[in-house]
Amino acid sequence: MSGSISPLAPKTYAEMPPVRGVRMATAAAGIKYKNRTDVLMMVFDRPAAVAGVFTRSKCPSAPVDFCRDNLPGGVARAVVVNSGNANAFTGRKGRESTKLTAEAAAKAVGCKESEVFLASTGVIGEPLDATKFSGVLDGLATSGTGDFWLEAAKAIMTTDTYPKVATRTAELGGVTVRINGIAKGAGMIAPDMATMLSFVVTDADLPAAVLQSLLSAGVGKTFNAITVDSDTSTSDTLLLFATGAAAADGQKAVTADDATLDGFRAALNDLLRDLALQVVRDGEGARKMVEITVEGAESDEAAKRIALSIANSPLVKTAVAGEDANWGRIVMAVGKSGELADRDRLAIWFGDVRVAVDGERDPGYSEEATSAIMQRQDIPVRVEIGLGNGRATVWTCDLTKEYVEINGDYRS
Amino acid sequence: MSGSISPLAPKTYAEMPPVRGVRMATAAAGIKYKNRTDVLMMVFDRPAAVAGVFTRSKCPSAPVDFCRDNLPGGVARAVVVNSGNANAFTGRKGRESTKLTAEAAAKAVGCKESEVFLASTGVIGEPLDATKFSGVLDGLATSGTGDFWLEAAKAIMTTDTYPKVATRTAELGGVTVRINGIAKGAGMIAPDMATMLSFVVTDADLPAAVLQSLLSAGVGKTFNAITVDSDTSTSDTLLLFATGAAAADGQKAVTADDATLDGFRAALNDLLRDLALQVVRDGEGARKMVEITVEGAESDEAAKRIALSIANSPLVKTAVAGEDANWGRIVMAVGKSGELADRDRLAIWFGDVRVAVDGERDPGYSEEATSAIMQRQDIPVRVEIGLGNGRATVWTCDLTKEYVEINGDYRS
Repeated sequence: MSGSISPLAPKTYAEMPPVRGVRMATAAAGIKYKNRTDVLMMVFDRPAAVAGVFTRSKCPSAPVDFCRDNLPGGVARAVVVNSGNANAFTGRKGRESTKLTAEAAAKAVGCKESEVFLASTGVIGEPLDATKFSGVLDGLATSGTGDFWLEAAKAIMTTDTYPKVATRTAELGGVTVRINGIAKGAGMIAPDMATMLSFVVTDADLPAAVLQSLLSAGVGKTFNAITVDSDTSTSDTLLLFATGAAAADGQKAVTADDATLDGFRAALNDLLRDLALQVVRDGEGARKMVEITVEGAESDEAAKRIALSIANSPLVKTAVAGEDANWGRIVMAVGKSGELADRDRLAIWFGDVRVAVDGERDPGYSEEATSAIMQRQDIPVRVEIGLGNGRATVWTCDLTKEYVEINGDYRS
Repeated sequence: MSGSISPLAPKTYAEMPPVRGVRMATAAAGIKYKNRTDVLMMVFDRPAAVAGVFTRSKCPSAPVDFCRDNLPGGVARAVVVNSGNANAFTGRKGRESTKLTAEAAAKAVGCKESEVFLASTGVIGEPLDATKFSGVLDGLATSGTGDFWLEAAKAIMTTDTYPKVATRTAELGGVTVRINGIAKGAGMIAPDMATMLSFVVTDADLPAAVLQSLLSAGVGKTFNAITVDSDTSTSDTLLLFATGAAAADGQKAVTADDATLDGFRAALNDLLRDLALQVVRDGEGARKMVEITVEGAESDEAAKRIALSIANSPLVKTAVAGEDANWGRIVMAVGKSGELADRDRLAIWFGDVRVAVDGERDPGYSEEATSAIMQRQDIPVRVEIGLGNGRATVWTCDLTKEYVEINGDYRS
């Protein structure tokens, strides 16, 4: 947790009403940080349906392995999350640690270990002492309340400067359902996948297979379209739970991901996007957010690769930090993406100012007008490739000296 | 040209004897910089054989297009290089500028435009005023001397803090031949290709096809194995010239890239490596150089991709800047490379200190011993993947606040 809050932080946090069927509590277990909470427990008193997406790293953390093993069961009763230690690259000790934690959580809640989900975030490679959990989980399981979302978001922060929360409602099966979510992430943020931790809970009554379909589709334009530093975490975990409490209101059953879900799908995707943008806006050292839209590429996939090539370029990101309208570096990043591009068809906009067209500087180029855009906190960049209909938008932040400072001595 | 010289700079510059058959001169044309030379002209009084490799950017500069057009002719009589403006993404004006410059050079030297080679480095997107050359090329063509290598290297610098020169000799066809080279580059440095400008001249008598074969093979483990910031320039140009002057000493003719070239090939590759490492050691803001060797990957190509994933990771590079032995970020970078890796077989060394083995922290891990390595100026990192025999070495530098500062306001 950094000393000062990101200038891009939301001015106010969303009011987070309870979601029926889930209770939460936090504790200060002293895993790494002092004087703050670092363990979150979520309890579902009745079995909740669960879906998940995870990092694509070839070196995933022990909790990621653990969740992947439990996911096919489709049922969740407890979630334990800690900050300060990622339990990644910890070998046999890492697996023992997840086993011990799951045993303690299952005992505290009265469920099977296969109904427990775990996530850890923090330093990689340090063994995680699971005995730090065993003393607190019993207490957390009984003391948890539904009105605890902001505190839950705070307990899972690492270098985050503010907690990330979002809430939505949707019409589903004749009733109104709620979706709440929290996320953490500030560095080691890149697709794929979500590159952070996020936990989303709805009181809707939906089977695990439908949830998984919604979640897998939903991350593409949200959590998988953000990057802070092109570095993919070993711990990325996004879990979506449905407690089913809305069935008591008379919510009609939904058995497949179809048009009856349109309202819910839209609300879920909107919430995922909200949380993902909150992560970018808390990018380590960030002072500015950049929204990069690429149009006219050969395909949507090509457009996304070009957009990410721009978003991950240190030279583009340092230019943004310096408020320098260095659009030549956008050209460079398009050129290095490997995707089809024709220099002489390229056009580039900063905000509504076209700076380049037909492969050269715009005849009406105004340094003054462009500089005015660069001085904004949120900077929209649009690139027209001129070859097809492929389109994608990604979000990133600038690269500042503070990023270097934060990451030059993270472990100590 | 930055104010202070990189702490990684060589303590002395190589003594650069003349190479028979090439003359050089520089001028201060005021393209962008004040009070320094910014144009270099090389003249071959007799036709020299020429080979080249260029950026793989899809948005190459006008001079790159120009050189690619002339390369099949295989003959060079003049080279004109400027710093301060890359003549990249300058559209029709860019092509007119290369045409005007080539005409002026051809007239000054008395050769065809197809025997002229051009390179430009500096800001992207600004039109390059070729009339700034026309006045100086006649004078440069007549005043050029052979003993001018260090001055030539200085004229092509941009954010470089020192000129980059190297010289070697080799036995070839019964005589001793010389190879001299200069390079520039400090930022926007990533494979492929060389990501900078470099001009290498030998007095050997070798046909263009043999030169091209040697050069294309030689860049793989040299200029294409370095990265400063993962950003690929639009202007990368590496040209190799053979004046043929050694034929007068009785050098036997060589018609194919075969064993008779072993000595020359080794000397050339050694010189290319020398120049490439000088580029990394002048990486923008660099305080430390990191040599990353990956062994035991599925193939040499896989090893190189893993090594570059480590070398380009902002989190690895900021940890190096902070002298933090954060080997967990090496694990992260291996995991995100997309190449086959088995977490539980990984081993990692900093210098001769093994920090991780069998998928977890080394049982004998010593923070003190590892920190001592991190305090060095040159830091060797070795990663054993444990799956095959693939091997690669790449070089990079740390990511410091000075990199952000240098690139936050480059254009002004």
